[in-house]
Amino acid sequence: MARPTPLSGFPELLPRQRAAELAVLDSLRATFELHGFASIETRAVEPLDQLLRKGESSKEVYTLRRLQAEPDTDDSSSAAGLGLHFDLTVPLARYVLENAGRLEFPFRRYQIQRCWRGERPQEGRYREFTQADIDVIGRDELSFDADVEVTEVMAEALSRLPLPAVTLQVNNRKLIDGFYRGIGASDPAAVIRTVDKLDKVGEDGARRLLADQAGLDGAQVEQCLALARISGTDSSFAARVRALGVEHPLLDEGLGDLVRVLDAAAHTQSERFTVVADLKIARGLDYYTGTVFEGRMATHGDLAICAGGRYDTLASDGRATYPGVGISLGVTRVVAPLVARGLLDGSRSVPSAVLIALPSDDDRPRGRTVARALRARGIATEVAPSAAKYGRQIRHAERRGIPYVWFPGAEGAVDQVKDIRSGDQVDADADTWMPPAADLRPHIISPSTRESAP
Amino acid sequence: MARPTPLSGFPELLPRQRAAELAVLDSLRATFELHGFASIETRAVEPLDQLLRKGESSKEVYTLRRLQAEPDTDDSSSAAGLGLHFDLTVPLARYVLENAGRLEFPFRRYQIQRCWRGERPQEGRYREFTQADIDVIGRDELSFDADVEVTEVMAEALSRLPLPAVTLQVNNRKLIDGFYRGIGASDPAAVIRTVDKLDKVGEDGARRLLADQAGLDGAQVEQCLALARISGTDSSFAARVRALGVEHPLLDEGLGDLVRVLDAAAHTQSERFTVVADLKIARGLDYYTGTVFEGRMATHGDLAICAGGRYDTLASDGRATYPGVGISLGVTRVVAPLVARGLLDGSRSVPSAVLIALPSDDDRPRGRTVARALRARGIATEVAPSAAKYGRQIRHAERRGIPYVWFPGAEGAVDQVKDIRSGDQVDADADTWMPPAADLRPHIISPSTRESAP
Repeated sequence: MARPTPLSGFPELLPRQRAAELAVLDSLRATFELHGFASIETRAVEPLDQLLRKGESSKEVYTLRRLQAEPDTDDSSSAAGLGLHFDLTVPLARYVLENAGRLEFPFRRYQIQRCWRGERPQEGRYREFTQADIDVIGRDELSFDADVEVTEVMAEALSRLPLPAVTLQVNNRKLIDGFYRGIGASDPAAVIRTVDKLDKVGEDGARRLLADQAGLDGAQVEQCLALARISGTDSSFAARVRALGVEHPLLDEGLGDLVRVLDAAAHTQSERFTVVADLKIARGLDYYTGTVFEGRMATHGDLAICAGGRYDTLASDGRATYPGVGISLGVTRVVAPLVARGLLDGSRSVPSAVLIALPSDDDRPRGRTVARALRARGIATEVAPSAAKYGRQIRHAERRGIPYVWFPGAEGAVDQVKDIRSGDQVDADADTWMPPAADLRPHIISPSTRESAP
Repeated sequence: MARPTPLSGFPELLPRQRAAELAVLDSLRATFELHGFASIETRAVEPLDQLLRKGESSKEVYTLRRLQAEPDTDDSSSAAGLGLHFDLTVPLARYVLENAGRLEFPFRRYQIQRCWRGERPQEGRYREFTQADIDVIGRDELSFDADVEVTEVMAEALSRLPLPAVTLQVNNRKLIDGFYRGIGASDPAAVIRTVDKLDKVGEDGARRLLADQAGLDGAQVEQCLALARISGTDSSFAARVRALGVEHPLLDEGLGDLVRVLDAAAHTQSERFTVVADLKIARGLDYYTGTVFEGRMATHGDLAICAGGRYDTLASDGRATYPGVGISLGVTRVVAPLVARGLLDGSRSVPSAVLIALPSDDDRPRGRTVARALRARGIATEVAPSAAKYGRQIRHAERRGIPYVWFPGAEGAVDQVKDIRSGDQVDADADTWMPPAADLRPHIISPSTRESAP
């Protein structure tokens, strides 16, 4: 068999890189769970009619077919109607409706799973990718406190990742909708769609579109652009909005809500992580009704790594309506470009903190006993595959990044353990020796954080 | 939208059930990592020609198609040639060849991922399911120590799951091949294929097949059946093989190997978990050459939950050959039937150990401060969604299985925390109070283990 080549759009990681991704996923999960969000997973497939409800995404869907489906069974027809999910929101809406009678509301869940889109592959756009979503779903009602909560949770989750600088941009649809109404825009939705393109078309382009497509006059256009220029990491941005002199009840409500969201994440602000109220963030999609989110990384800011917001109707089944608020983090969009640029790696390619060296092949049972004693205290340990010369066994550890090599002592002598990075070698007892906590597991090495994080 | 119905063959779990599955997956991962096995994940898709190399599985494959593939791009032709992987061995072989120059051998990896098969759904057979595989892959050579190691690792992993009784059956192809040669069988492979069907056809059926298809005479048939009846949980089974009086060098080698494997797992034997040398285990597939494994659960023993063995050629690229040994555990085959029968569940539907009750809505900021202090010490905590009457807030916790409700004290008074199972309520400080370790995370409740395991 010839050497296979990678499939474009389907990124895979080497073991060391995967160790870094796993550390990212573990960190996200730990934060979500500390806040009491429950894990769910949904099946990878959904009925095609569900996936295509929003017509715009139809070209991105992978459909499934059984290779040898028998045409005379109803089974084949249902299989023909299945596609792989392209996000975790459509499956969540279906899961909530299907299990509504067995879930407790507000239903707070996280979901870390792969999604698939048949897009043209390029950096940041993959055909298979991992998403990490948090959402809070209510039945018929959902307090604004849920918006505050998902902001706080995702801000904490992002702030704990030892990654290049991340910014979480927040805005509020009511705020901008009220502002556009307050200046007398006749079609606020058209203004929102235009402002959403601001980064792409620039201010001059936006001026033309706001006049041509949203029917604004020159003064209104300038007010819109003035609002879009406002951003800030604390509540002082509100005074700058007020200074524009526009009045509308929706604007007041949205402004108050946005300040609350920003305050809730104040404790997560750092050099590497910023939450910012950014009034040009509109999110083009119609279903957002309140808070909206976008997240970006300093290293590749052109593509959002986070997106989400408040939707008054995630799902509805005739008896009840399910409003929700959530944020989706593109794990692959974060990890894959950093890995590709050498900006993210694991500290070693195996979980092992210790390699047990073998003086001779007859010592294997003794080596396994030592290994078992270390593992019983949570120290990941492997035994050398053969009793080669010690130099070769140490190189075995070095090539994998294993920090410690254990030498079983000769008859009656004590064992010794060597830190192969420093060369330090000390007497050790398998029932008591412990490596420093930072050496217990592989950790993330990310040059942009200027240090390896434990 | 009408209430959706489940898709047959695509099992999904409610949050409490998912908490139990997650505990199973965490336990497996912890064991694999303690032994130094590295995590990898492969893409969900493989080229169809790779998936169909073993012709027998062709009808099980789901193929992918982009819904709106443009026929004039070469992209569409490659997408048309993709299918979802039906196991984790075919992707492993491809991954090893693709990355051979960047992996260290022996390459010890675990892989926990979903697989898809277009099979007719029934209990124990799913169209989407999670597998947990461990394998050790060598380049050109791989010591028998690897067989011993994967047995030990999977035996430890299975023995730590708080599940109904599990048996891991082990045999050795050399042992039975040598035995069949030793009694003068002209086609040992035909004998192996027949013995593999023993459970299905019974001894009388096997007698006919061994005579008709493997060409054995009556005495040879009875020798084969006598061997197949031998099983044992320690090395004493070897004497019963010897007592059959058959001699062959391969038999000697296989017998010694099987004894070593059994000895390596001796420390994992318990009431709930057994490793047994079972000489009727043959595994029909041609590519196994030494150790073979099958695992079963007492609650639904008809379907193997584990399978694997030694294969001398996992992959080959003209320059090198990659032998391997591995075991695949069907996580969904274990979890889904137990969940369906009510034999497996989580202790609660959320990670939260504590619910912060709110005396009034004005106390929400104080509630969030308490929650943050608890989370900082690793205690999963959520804040009540509204300041309802305390009785209603306690029921909110009860319905989710949250064991503790925290009551912020009035001005100047200390906080209190109530164990809502016992009703005990005590003064507590958010900076020092700690629940018992068993309450920190959801755990598995499995009636068959007669207790809830922490």
